[in-house]
Amino acid sequence: MTAGSPPAETAPAAGAAEWEQLVAQIRELFDLYHMASLLGWDREVSMSLQGADARARQMATLRVIRHERLTDPRLEELMRSLAEQELDRPRREMLRLLRRDRDRALRLPADFVRRLGLAEARGAVAWRIAREEGDFALLQPALEEVIAAKREEADLVGLDGERYDSLLDQYEPGMRVARLEPLLRSLRSELVELFGAIMDAPQIEPQPFEGRLFPDQAQWDLTMRLLADVGFDLTAGRQDRSAHPFTQSLALHDVRVTTRIDERFPLSGIYATLHEAGHGMYEQGFDPQYEDTPLAEAPSLGLHESQSRMWENIVGRSRVFWERYAPVMEEMFGDSAAGSGAEQFYRACNRVQPSLIRVEADEISYNLHILIRFELELALLRDELEVADLPAAWNDAYAETLGIRPENDVLGVMQDIHWPSGSIGYFPTYTLGNVYSGMLWQAYEAADPGWESHIRRGEFDHLLGWLREQVHRPGSMEEGEDLVRRVTGSRLDHGPLMRYLRGKFEPLYGLSG
Amino acid sequence: MTAGSPPAETAPAAGAAEWEQLVAQIRELFDLYHMASLLGWDREVSMSLQGADARARQMATLRVIRHERLTDPRLEELMRSLAEQELDRPRREMLRLLRRDRDRALRLPADFVRRLGLAEARGAVAWRIAREEGDFALLQPALEEVIAAKREEADLVGLDGERYDSLLDQYEPGMRVARLEPLLRSLRSELVELFGAIMDAPQIEPQPFEGRLFPDQAQWDLTMRLLADVGFDLTAGRQDRSAHPFTQSLALHDVRVTTRIDERFPLSGIYATLHEAGHGMYEQGFDPQYEDTPLAEAPSLGLHESQSRMWENIVGRSRVFWERYAPVMEEMFGDSAAGSGAEQFYRACNRVQPSLIRVEADEISYNLHILIRFELELALLRDELEVADLPAAWNDAYAETLGIRPENDVLGVMQDIHWPSGSIGYFPTYTLGNVYSGMLWQAYEAADPGWESHIRRGEFDHLLGWLREQVHRPGSMEEGEDLVRRVTGSRLDHGPLMRYLRGKFEPLYGLSG
Repeated sequence: MTAGSPPAETAPAAGAAEWEQLVAQIRELFDLYHMASLLGWDREVSMSLQGADARARQMATLRVIRHERLTDPRLEELMRSLAEQELDRPRREMLRLLRRDRDRALRLPADFVRRLGLAEARGAVAWRIAREEGDFALLQPALEEVIAAKREEADLVGLDGERYDSLLDQYEPGMRVARLEPLLRSLRSELVELFGAIMDAPQIEPQPFEGRLFPDQAQWDLTMRLLADVGFDLTAGRQDRSAHPFTQSLALHDVRVTTRIDERFPLSGIYATLHEAGHGMYEQGFDPQYEDTPLAEAPSLGLHESQSRMWENIVGRSRVFWERYAPVMEEMFGDSAAGSGAEQFYRACNRVQPSLIRVEADEISYNLHILIRFELELALLRDELEVADLPAAWNDAYAETLGIRPENDVLGVMQDIHWPSGSIGYFPTYTLGNVYSGMLWQAYEAADPGWESHIRRGEFDHLLGWLREQVHRPGSMEEGEDLVRRVTGSRLDHGPLMRYLRGKFEPLYGLSG
Repeated sequence: MTAGSPPAETAPAAGAAEWEQLVAQIRELFDLYHMASLLGWDREVSMSLQGADARARQMATLRVIRHERLTDPRLEELMRSLAEQELDRPRREMLRLLRRDRDRALRLPADFVRRLGLAEARGAVAWRIAREEGDFALLQPALEEVIAAKREEADLVGLDGERYDSLLDQYEPGMRVARLEPLLRSLRSELVELFGAIMDAPQIEPQPFEGRLFPDQAQWDLTMRLLADVGFDLTAGRQDRSAHPFTQSLALHDVRVTTRIDERFPLSGIYATLHEAGHGMYEQGFDPQYEDTPLAEAPSLGLHESQSRMWENIVGRSRVFWERYAPVMEEMFGDSAAGSGAEQFYRACNRVQPSLIRVEADEISYNLHILIRFELELALLRDELEVADLPAAWNDAYAETLGIRPENDVLGVMQDIHWPSGSIGYFPTYTLGNVYSGMLWQAYEAADPGWESHIRRGEFDHLLGWLREQVHRPGSMEEGEDLVRRVTGSRLDHGPLMRYLRGKFEPLYGLSG
């Protein structure tokens, strides 16, 4: 249960005391980080709106304290002195990661950090209120403050490349617009083509279970069972409900996932849970000896998302998954699931259609939703778009890309919490996650040719064991792209994702391959 | 929803900027304090045991940071400079309260604060595990660490008087053993006499509802209804479940209470909820203009407890309360409550008997439970008792005072979380709370002679309104004893409590008054 310090026996004796000092400071930074996670988790799971102002200030205070610790000149001394010593690989990597965090922090004045923290926390609350009221005008001033602060943050950080890069880099270290844009564009053109072909083909008809009610409690029980089945350790974490499913790690052994349940749409809770289980198992899978150090983190959000989307889509929307779980559905839901076998669930969960809500989108159009967001936030950061014009720009983009136009902003620009809460540059990591998941899955298929029969029998430990070894335990020892290259042997490439999608959807829609 | 700063218009212009600076620092201290409350709340409500080690460290880190802020020399400068200016009363009181906190903090080295924080957080977890296993040996080492740390803390703080005083003073500022002991002793002799007389009288027979099952969900619904009925603002707080009911304030408008429900004992959840509602309404009732300052706090735990015990006992165990709620019980529980009217519930909830568990004790023997604890912790602090001998000493004290001996330590020394989590000097505030509640209630009866008919009609706003004005809104503007003297016109006196108890229990047990 307790993690030791990074193995002291391999440290040169001279620097041992200094290293212990650094570890103590790193631990404190992680304590603060995990407290922020709890403040955020509680805000979404437990807090009532009346607590929002105080919570926003608490979150800002915590960020300022963390910033103060990270920019403390005594930390610099310690890091410099240690950098001059002979360190083993894990220690070098820890120093590298700490250096990166510190360098970024040094460019942001404390006053700005508080202002940004307040803007983001208040934006998240304004978003919640504006959604309840269905009124973008209630969000606009808070969102304007956030966007202004993010532009300022990007300018202060001032990485090479364009302004957006300084935000993107937080989530996907080393990634730049110049490299990302071509990848996304060529992915888009292939997806648009496939999407069009599917739209022209005979559509998937409604399945017997659709339209029936699936009681809330039984759905909850099913999601808890799924968590246990796939390997999420419920003794070292928990599941709750929230309006928008998410995962927060409060400690290596205290990982919280959430789900949401809709009695009319049983697939919604199942996929929310599988998605968050993917994130949650990653968070539970870091090497315990590096607990509370930068090594016990995902190297990038894209890689994190590769895990959630692999479990949600590649596993959860597979035919073999439903061969396993269709009988479970009938057992748990009786009449509601009656007459729906594996094939019916498989077809229903893979129905492709233009839709307004990203998190409910099929695997083909999902990335088109992301691309719309990416281009809009890029325009915001390039000063080519202002917040007041965002709803119209959003609706136009949906009409153009997917041929449908949101009737209101709750179904449109207000569907995601990301922008109001300051996560700009975050959306592309979802698509990168899909790309990574395609690459990693191809490697896994090669390593475990019997994967279909494993999943059909409900044995997920083959996949989880492989991911633990290849992806989870290494943590941030390598950069995300380096990790994927080590595992797959190739550079960032959307080929495997497209092959996977074609391999699934062409037969499903009767298209010639 | 937002509280302004303490009214700036009344401040002398010269010190306005300095005052703003101080307020910012006070706010930060309160942010840290409220974060600690969330860490604690979550530990008891949501966290799994595997998260305990990390949580203990997070809590210790937070305490160290708060200590560091409180002992910052720049704060001294600011406080001195402000103290030389002409300040209005609220500001003077804020400075006084901050000074008291700071003076205490200055006597504790940061290293000790971390050690104490870790010991207390680990003690709380060891307690939970030891209780589950029913084995005091699993608690003993952690408890020894805590007791050693508390002795050290008391010596470091070193107030006038004996060692125990330095701990007691945290919870009941200004109270000392020399003054407390005589009060408790004379209360004890009167209680023991009354208790003996009651034991010699014909006992209250089992009531029709006892032994029946009261479904969990309906009990939960009832406790939620009670919270709303008495005036706890559920839009600015919430109720959850925990093994041991408690109240935590995360902000003025985010107050969390917990309860516990046992299908065999419907009164248990009702009184847990009423008790915590009393605490919770106090926390919700401070003057919003002093939000996140030391003025928006109870001046003492005794006064806090006066609120919880007034709602639980004086209100909740009254005949008129049951005249209101007996029909509600029948409506919500049907057959289980059938045949039990107000009189039956009234008699059952006021059955006096020797019992092992403090929180389930009747109003007469409750204070005897407290006195046992007070004498034991006094002995621990006086080095007259060691942790290893605590279980035997506990059991002997129960045999002597109440004539019953716990069969195991879960029913004995391990029933309360207080000592393992470092709350030494805390128990007497429960009895002080009873004494204060007796005094305050006498004043309230005089102010609202129609109180019985109000409660019989379910109108609790008369009482709550009076408490808001007399007790809640003033916050810490006065010391607890001064506040009670202002409201009641008399000094600390257990007379009103004894009169209340005799007035209720003598007729109930057919004793001549």
